[in-house]
Amino acid sequence: MPSDFPKRITLLGSTGSIGTQALDVVRAHPTRFTVAALSAHSNADLLIQQAQEFRPAAVVIGDETKYQTVKAALAGQPETEVLAGETALTEVAGRPNADIVLTAMVGYAGLLPTVAAIRAGKDIALANKETLVVAGQLITQLVREYEVGLYPVDSEHSAIFQCLVGEERNPIEKIILTASGGPFRGRSRAELASVTKAQALKHPNWDMGAKITIDSASLMNKGLEVIEAKWLFGLRDDQIDVVVHPQSIIHSLVQFEDGSLKAQLGLPDMKLPIQYALGYPHRLPASFPRFSFLDYPQLTFEQPDKTAFRNLALAFEAMSRAGNAPCVLNAANEVAVAAFLRDEVGFLQMSELVEECLSRVSYLADPSLDDYVHTDKEARRIAQEWLLKQAGKSVI
Amino acid sequence: MPSDFPKRITLLGSTGSIGTQALDVVRAHPTRFTVAALSAHSNADLLIQQAQEFRPAAVVIGDETKYQTVKAALAGQPETEVLAGETALTEVAGRPNADIVLTAMVGYAGLLPTVAAIRAGKDIALANKETLVVAGQLITQLVREYEVGLYPVDSEHSAIFQCLVGEERNPIEKIILTASGGPFRGRSRAELASVTKAQALKHPNWDMGAKITIDSASLMNKGLEVIEAKWLFGLRDDQIDVVVHPQSIIHSLVQFEDGSLKAQLGLPDMKLPIQYALGYPHRLPASFPRFSFLDYPQLTFEQPDKTAFRNLALAFEAMSRAGNAPCVLNAANEVAVAAFLRDEVGFLQMSELVEECLSRVSYLADPSLDDYVHTDKEARRIAQEWLLKQAGKSVI
Repeated sequence: MPSDFPKRITLLGSTGSIGTQALDVVRAHPTRFTVAALSAHSNADLLIQQAQEFRPAAVVIGDETKYQTVKAALAGQPETEVLAGETALTEVAGRPNADIVLTAMVGYAGLLPTVAAIRAGKDIALANKETLVVAGQLITQLVREYEVGLYPVDSEHSAIFQCLVGEERNPIEKIILTASGGPFRGRSRAELASVTKAQALKHPNWDMGAKITIDSASLMNKGLEVIEAKWLFGLRDDQIDVVVHPQSIIHSLVQFEDGSLKAQLGLPDMKLPIQYALGYPHRLPASFPRFSFLDYPQLTFEQPDKTAFRNLALAFEAMSRAGNAPCVLNAANEVAVAAFLRDEVGFLQMSELVEECLSRVSYLADPSLDDYVHTDKEARRIAQEWLLKQAGKSVI
Repeated sequence: MPSDFPKRITLLGSTGSIGTQALDVVRAHPTRFTVAALSAHSNADLLIQQAQEFRPAAVVIGDETKYQTVKAALAGQPETEVLAGETALTEVAGRPNADIVLTAMVGYAGLLPTVAAIRAGKDIALANKETLVVAGQLITQLVREYEVGLYPVDSEHSAIFQCLVGEERNPIEKIILTASGGPFRGRSRAELASVTKAQALKHPNWDMGAKITIDSASLMNKGLEVIEAKWLFGLRDDQIDVVVHPQSIIHSLVQFEDGSLKAQLGLPDMKLPIQYALGYPHRLPASFPRFSFLDYPQLTFEQPDKTAFRNLALAFEAMSRAGNAPCVLNAANEVAVAAFLRDEVGFLQMSELVEECLSRVSYLADPSLDDYVHTDKEARRIAQEWLLKQAGKSVI
């Protein structure tokens, strides 16, 4: 349930793009938000700075080799406990001194801490979409069981969530997720074969972390969002459409059974959905730059090209197979993106790798949490094998 | 307060464009809606047909010369009482056998029946925007005093109303009313001097009655909507913007204090806002054609031209003067449009006449209902004088 202000926030992934913007929001509303705990994967320097500014009760550095650095830097700040490693992260996520946990870590790593936070009765501001992609059925069951709020941070899902307030009695007919189309919109499959990492990292509208920027370029991000939306809003697969909208002004739409559509719009700025998720159901006054039609005299829309951008088709396929298929999709994609960022595979090979894993990992119709953990490992193992084989091929 | 189904509807103005479409909605939901009473200004034939189909407890024909015709035609239908004239209309509007009154009559004539319905505790589905333009302060006071619902039917105001559900705790920063721009969008003042009635009656997107179609062509309709919105949503004048959006897909937008915008969209079809107002807070399943971005790959936006379309500037001016100024604006415009439809004045002269009346009718800062009735008469008298003078000029 939404609690009143001040709200105590545990911020998992505080040094990333979402994390630092979330702290901007906290900074702008010092009477409404306090920081209970912070965690970072490996950026010890920034985590230390943040801890010194926000003075949380705990910080967790994922990379255990950096524990001593963080510990030493915060030696003069006894109110802040310093911890390290995955187990500590999951333990801190469920501590009683927070009202809401913002999950802004990257990828599959978000799953276990999120489960811990829900089981501890925390509301979740969900930026880590992979949690729902991997284990949507399990997570939404837990959310109902522990009666916590699940507030999306992704701009598209925040848009839909905002459009649904007050509409609880009115069933959704369908949703339309908008997609910018990324830097390669309009390119053919042949043209995509030769695009570079540097090109893929230049998103036209959004300034984000590397993983999600590559996912946006390949439309896998939209695919993951489709699956995320299914679980967040309890939809059938055929109730989810994607439309490419290069200006990223309409953040997404809901259509009701009377045919009426509602949309949420604004400049592409993640601070708004972050603040909405943290402040829900209150909209807090903010000085974010305002949208004006004078600057956007044309909004355009087109169909996504699922042939060139095969990842989007694969995501719909994994969603329709259900079970552990989306977990496989996500794990394979995480390995693929990391390999692409290390220049080990080309842009199109990312889809090949995902497809390979989807066809090879054993299918489970109704996975438990342990099954997801196992599936993730299995998919990564197969993906690594495939990568080695590819490397071998190019050596030969 | 919104009552549950079945809802009993009194439909004032049942033979016009809104009225006939409202009956289509009733026809589509026979278990949810019944008709308590119908009224028409002068179309006796259609009123008789409607009465035979929907079998209301009362029908009112405004034009008393047609009373006998209606009475005779419905002689074999003893459950339907037949009445005629203004006083009967006001009396029927407040009868206890209805839950909601849809005010779909044209112009100032809507004021007194609407007041009667509110005083009788009826919810109002407001299609007659002139009621709020003329006497917004008084009507909104009555709505609060008698604790009735006031549900807009105009597509723009319905859009905003739909975007506001669930946002009761979140103040509006501003609203943006969209305008199609009408058939003369882009024309200069000089070009507007010679446009004809036939051209003005061809609206690009909406199929409506003659009065509102001319008002749309002159942008007076948008001006009246601006004033209507001020009262419906309790806004300051500087919180209302107008943007021209020729495709009429985004029906209007609300901006909140966090900078987030919400919009309602759909094909231009008045049945949707009519049904929403009658069914509120329920959205009823409907087979209205669905919007698709495939058919609208571009949505465009531009500033309204208040120099060429002087009526829009005059409406903002009347709103800012407040008191009885909007009542004068409306009365003068009703006379002007009627004269334009009789080919007695040109397109641009409609604004001249409105301006003349605004400068000549005595200003009242805080008018009573009687003052509005008097102001309306006075403005019409001055308008008629001006018309006679113009006619004299063209004779000389």
